[in-house]
Amino acid sequence: MSDRIRTRSWWGWGNEEDALTSDQSEGLADALRHRFERDDLVVRPAPSLGDIAITPSRLTPPEPLRPLMSDDRRDRALHTYGRSYRDVVRGFGGDFSGAPDLVAHPAGESDVVAVLDWCTSAGIVVVPFGGGSSVVGGVEGGRQPEPWISLDLTSLSGVIEIDRTSRAARIEAGILGPGLEDQLRPHGLTLRHFPQSFEFSTLGGWLATRSGGHYATVRTHIDDFVESMRVVTPSGIAESARLPGSGAGPSPDRLFLGSEGILGVITEAWMRLADRPQWKSSAAVHFEDYTSAVDATRAVSQSGLDPTNCRLLDSTEAMLSAGVASGAHLLIVGFESADHPVDRPIERAVEIARDHGGTVPDAIAVTGPDDATAAAGRDGAVGAWRNAFIRAPYARDAMVAMSVIAETFETATTWDRFGDLHAAVTTEAQKGLADICGGGWITCRFTHVYPDGPAPYFSILAPARPGSEVAMWDEVKAAVSEVLSAQGATITHHHAVGRDHRPWYDRQRPDLFARALTAAKSTLDPAGILNPGVVIDPAQPAP
Amino acid sequence: MSDRIRTRSWWGWGNEEDALTSDQSEGLADALRHRFERDDLVVRPAPSLGDIAITPSRLTPPEPLRPLMSDDRRDRALHTYGRSYRDVVRGFGGDFSGAPDLVAHPAGESDVVAVLDWCTSAGIVVVPFGGGSSVVGGVEGGRQPEPWISLDLTSLSGVIEIDRTSRAARIEAGILGPGLEDQLRPHGLTLRHFPQSFEFSTLGGWLATRSGGHYATVRTHIDDFVESMRVVTPSGIAESARLPGSGAGPSPDRLFLGSEGILGVITEAWMRLADRPQWKSSAAVHFEDYTSAVDATRAVSQSGLDPTNCRLLDSTEAMLSAGVASGAHLLIVGFESADHPVDRPIERAVEIARDHGGTVPDAIAVTGPDDATAAAGRDGAVGAWRNAFIRAPYARDAMVAMSVIAETFETATTWDRFGDLHAAVTTEAQKGLADICGGGWITCRFTHVYPDGPAPYFSILAPARPGSEVAMWDEVKAAVSEVLSAQGATITHHHAVGRDHRPWYDRQRPDLFARALTAAKSTLDPAGILNPGVVIDPAQPAP
Repeated sequence: MSDRIRTRSWWGWGNEEDALTSDQSEGLADALRHRFERDDLVVRPAPSLGDIAITPSRLTPPEPLRPLMSDDRRDRALHTYGRSYRDVVRGFGGDFSGAPDLVAHPAGESDVVAVLDWCTSAGIVVVPFGGGSSVVGGVEGGRQPEPWISLDLTSLSGVIEIDRTSRAARIEAGILGPGLEDQLRPHGLTLRHFPQSFEFSTLGGWLATRSGGHYATVRTHIDDFVESMRVVTPSGIAESARLPGSGAGPSPDRLFLGSEGILGVITEAWMRLADRPQWKSSAAVHFEDYTSAVDATRAVSQSGLDPTNCRLLDSTEAMLSAGVASGAHLLIVGFESADHPVDRPIERAVEIARDHGGTVPDAIAVTGPDDATAAAGRDGAVGAWRNAFIRAPYARDAMVAMSVIAETFETATTWDRFGDLHAAVTTEAQKGLADICGGGWITCRFTHVYPDGPAPYFSILAPARPGSEVAMWDEVKAAVSEVLSAQGATITHHHAVGRDHRPWYDRQRPDLFARALTAAKSTLDPAGILNPGVVIDPAQPAP
Repeated sequence: MSDRIRTRSWWGWGNEEDALTSDQSEGLADALRHRFERDDLVVRPAPSLGDIAITPSRLTPPEPLRPLMSDDRRDRALHTYGRSYRDVVRGFGGDFSGAPDLVAHPAGESDVVAVLDWCTSAGIVVVPFGGGSSVVGGVEGGRQPEPWISLDLTSLSGVIEIDRTSRAARIEAGILGPGLEDQLRPHGLTLRHFPQSFEFSTLGGWLATRSGGHYATVRTHIDDFVESMRVVTPSGIAESARLPGSGAGPSPDRLFLGSEGILGVITEAWMRLADRPQWKSSAAVHFEDYTSAVDATRAVSQSGLDPTNCRLLDSTEAMLSAGVASGAHLLIVGFESADHPVDRPIERAVEIARDHGGTVPDAIAVTGPDDATAAAGRDGAVGAWRNAFIRAPYARDAMVAMSVIAETFETATTWDRFGDLHAAVTTEAQKGLADICGGGWITCRFTHVYPDGPAPYFSILAPARPGSEVAMWDEVKAAVSEVLSAQGATITHHHAVGRDHRPWYDRQRPDLFARALTAAKSTLDPAGILNPGVVIDPAQPAP
């Protein structure tokens, strides 16, 4: 990122200035025309704000709240959707019929309280909005017909307090990833939570959705980095004690982690930080056979080495994302430490991988604090993959413009079930893509691995009919979700439930847990104003 | 443990056969007479079952449940209390006025359902009972005046299914620690959860109380080893999906982990296992200065080495438990692995400790699979401490017989607050012991350490007046608990809340969380029969 001015896109991913250039889009279109044998593939121009229809706001805020409330067209458009494929397609197509009536921009916690008080008394739906990068319909309040407010929390963006001794900080929940790391860097500290959405998602969003981050093993979800949380609910403020560990009753934080804005608005958290790493090592291991690659990845994940990075890319993904032209599957393994060299663990991990038939064509990268650059893993296949990872959502938006479906779905399952799951998902997806789209690609990588199972992440690329992209994708998505459900895999490892995953989530979670959660919501949000339809059915207002 | 027959003590810790011998007790008494300058210290004889008064059962089970129900005197006495100091004193004194009216011994889950159904319809209090090792009044249903049933789950003791590929097993919750490890050993697997109560506590008890186990860092609580759980509630059975990781809504398991029997009865869990370690290393580091020892421990905990063992014993504890006569504080650090040598991490940990002024008088112990014995850390100070750790509860019971207070309390706090906390606890405890007992000892060790703070564990030894032990201890306990509360430390890191910690827990947890939990309980246990008074106030029966 340079210092150039950036403007958030009101319909697509990230910043307008970082979108693919026309030349890049045309180049991509050429490649896809060739790949899909579709000469009719056309790059349509991006939508214009002046051309979209947004109905007038149905809400009039009380006088004291007016300074916080925006009914600006651009603001309302930007807050209408998250940023899934189906969101961007609809935004690109100019469909903003479900736009929020108002966007609230609280400057601090007392403003959040005031907004919830008004909305509770007036029965107005409120949808908390962090970076707005949801890919599961989590911020789309317009799915229900009543007037609604999008509560944009990005002004709560300060690191309030740093405890260097305990390596922790008290942080406002509306902070975006880069701002957070910028404020921690002078202290030599880092949260090291780098989801793909890092630039455009907030701490509060990560907490509310149980975001998956940088570490591929052990501490994968943001959950494990929470010391305490502060949550504004319509019934008052809940703040947990700041503790490194506790066994005092069920964890209060774990009730709010993953609650996706239905119980309250997270305004602050004390987060566990790390010293910035000084030693790094990484390797790219190639496998001819996928089963061997999976077995190697399992062995590494069960070795107790606990690599920071451990991502298995299937051959297509390795070709597309990391430039591996040989048809090999690619296992990327990496270690990092702020305290000690990490040459031995990478050697052992590579040894395990070789025992399973892996080869290591490039040198193992090992760097330390005295090296001129801390570039371990930035070159070759590892670096290529990292760059592709960050740019992927922009490429996705370019494909929206050419009516190509580019979307992902992800899950987790135990190792004993992975082979069947992978076969069933791949078969069903290919069948669905052939039937619905006339063809397409499905690829798989592991984003996280546990000793008892991987978190596979699937990417889909397929041609669609202009105007039918959402319907076609929804059909594919439903088909693969049915497979996940039938195979006992989770409907989401780190993308959350939102509105889109409800049918399969409802089968996955214990009914009694849903009833308990509904009861808890009735206590914390008695008017049922918070993010209705997400995770559980909208609560009935208290009689 | 030998193959000799063992009989569970109905009033004290563990097995009757493993209690201190008369000679051992007299030797201990001599030492304490000398230490406390109390010539009047007398070893009283253990109670006799024939001498205690137990009122007749007030409950008559329906015919189909009779085979499960026991009103045997010994059974009722054994299930009256947990095994805290105040429990054993009362048992030793023959006070069984609060004994359960019946002890239920379900043979399987359907029996658990039948018992809950009857108790729900008849409004009878049910207290789930695993190994009965609670030290917080967690199984003491007799605190309330109504008739009650102790639900002993130890017949649900099978390992039902093993998934070697994913290294996980489906296990019945009533299994005791040794039985669990015995069933896993032939598969080369281990849960490696070894609380001090290991022999006399169950998987279900560990889950219900968020037990702290073997690993001193990272995965400290049993919580982290759960793939899924099956819980019988009065409203039905809740079973979560078996997953290595998930971000689908708030974790259902985390609602039941730490619920201490108020929401349901855990009957099964899929647990994450490990291969049995083959490489071990350990070191005992001595420090003259306590602050330096704490700083060294912090540095090791923040190094990312993540030792398996990392316990700091203050000088008195090092002397009493590990035979360190020099007056040094003792840091025990250890590593283990099933995959690779662990010589490098112990060397780095020792290097860090030395940088903080530590010395290592004994050799660093390093063993591997080819060594004749896997005795690393079994000798010297490390081994002495381990043996003392396991025998401590038996010594405690011997001290009950001589009216000496021997009890512990534990907490966790962030590193920045530890110095003040330690000073305040020590000062308040010494003042309390002087005022109330005329003197006594307080010692401290860390049972677990996190990058952001330690879990200190305090032990108290003080002379008491026969007949007043409970009152005197309660006064000391209340005083130190007030200090923990004032310092923002948790009232428990791994001993749970039960009934004894309620006043301080109620201040610690967010009020809104208690309200949400109460609402959840009303849904799962509408008649409010399950373990009333534990964690939250007894639910009012549904109107």
